[in-house]
Amino acid sequence: MAPVTPPVPDAYAPTERTVPTRSRERAAYDRETVHSILDQEYVCHLGFVRDGRPVVLPTLYARVGERLYVHGSTGSRPLRMAGGEDPGLPVCLTVTHLDGLVLARSAFHHSMNYRSVMVHGIAHQVTDPGEKLAALDALVDQVVPGRSADSRPANAKEAAATAVLRLDLDEVSAKMRTGGPNDEPEDLELPYWTGVIPARRTYGTPVPADDLAPSVPLPSYLRGY
Amino acid sequence: MAPVTPPVPDAYAPTERTVPTRSRERAAYDRETVHSILDQEYVCHLGFVRDGRPVVLPTLYARVGERLYVHGSTGSRPLRMAGGEDPGLPVCLTVTHLDGLVLARSAFHHSMNYRSVMVHGIAHQVTDPGEKLAALDALVDQVVPGRSADSRPANAKEAAATAVLRLDLDEVSAKMRTGGPNDEPEDLELPYWTGVIPARRTYGTPVPADDLAPSVPLPSYLRGY
Repeated sequence: MAPVTPPVPDAYAPTERTVPTRSRERAAYDRETVHSILDQEYVCHLGFVRDGRPVVLPTLYARVGERLYVHGSTGSRPLRMAGGEDPGLPVCLTVTHLDGLVLARSAFHHSMNYRSVMVHGIAHQVTDPGEKLAALDALVDQVVPGRSADSRPANAKEAAATAVLRLDLDEVSAKMRTGGPNDEPEDLELPYWTGVIPARRTYGTPVPADDLAPSVPLPSYLRGY
Repeated sequence: MAPVTPPVPDAYAPTERTVPTRSRERAAYDRETVHSILDQEYVCHLGFVRDGRPVVLPTLYARVGERLYVHGSTGSRPLRMAGGEDPGLPVCLTVTHLDGLVLARSAFHHSMNYRSVMVHGIAHQVTDPGEKLAALDALVDQVVPGRSADSRPANAKEAAATAVLRLDLDEVSAKMRTGGPNDEPEDLELPYWTGVIPARRTYGTPVPADDLAPSVPLPSYLRGY
């Protein structure tokens, strides 16, 4: 039987913007790699152009299928710029995991192990109320999975004060480096320590708010922190 | 006696670009705060405009006094765009530390504790050979203090293959959030756990390269990892 919906391709089509000028062997376009990098993080750096000049804002994002969402006050600059008659806001959304410091024998070959995703596209304000509420839940759950079901949902006033931008995953690339240093053959005998220092984000024990009633236990979804 | 050089002001002058549209109480312009945030990190997200569209690249930076440096291949896009007759490249360089996840009783008041710095300016290619070599050392030392003196310096060929951009600290702001959740008074009795999950980057035990001679010890500046 023919599928009801067209099959989703396994990879994003490279474009002139998403093919790096160098280290092309580090680039990837397959959906699985891109989703995996996006799903393990929640902070992105969102770039847009204002009065001809670049602006880069750190902000949260969530992935829902082939869409990313970011949110902000209805008064914030990028949200306003994408709103109104809504021509959309050209953006570049970048997510980066730092995995390790690569110390080579030569200063030149020092490097980083990392995984990053860069998404180019036009962000649009979400106007459908159902999509907006689902996006707000997704933003909470991207940071702490399960949390949206264990907190008070946004009320009408809060939802009205929040703008949500949608960015389709279409023009997307991943870039990554793994492994040890790549020293020059003539440097191998130099007396410098060489290797990788692994790096990752870690979390401390959750600190209850001062006004939390002692009867409220730490929920199971927070016990892994 | 009059100072030989004019005194450095204690703060960066706010501009229209560096005054946030909201949460202004989270913004800071004093040099000490800005330097402190910059000096505790080495990965930035560098934004620039290419063909009218934003691009956000993760890259390393170093601070030397009132200048930031980033580097890349002489063939990479932003480096080429800042070179040639060198009109300079308008950039926004953003550095972000994530310090904690703030879980409020309401989804709306979920937040992040963070410290970030945003630098706007025109980046220029460094052409002075001495400044360039010092910047390359600073880039290595920003990541691992002391490392540049314990590795082989760049030779002429490597230095020629590397372009360095300089960005003056002039139009600069910091933004940060600290503390616990700010729930609405009417939500205080809700039965949801609330508090902060501390977050930070941590490092694992350094992993020697496969070809490191066993006689080379782990240097003292790496023993803290």
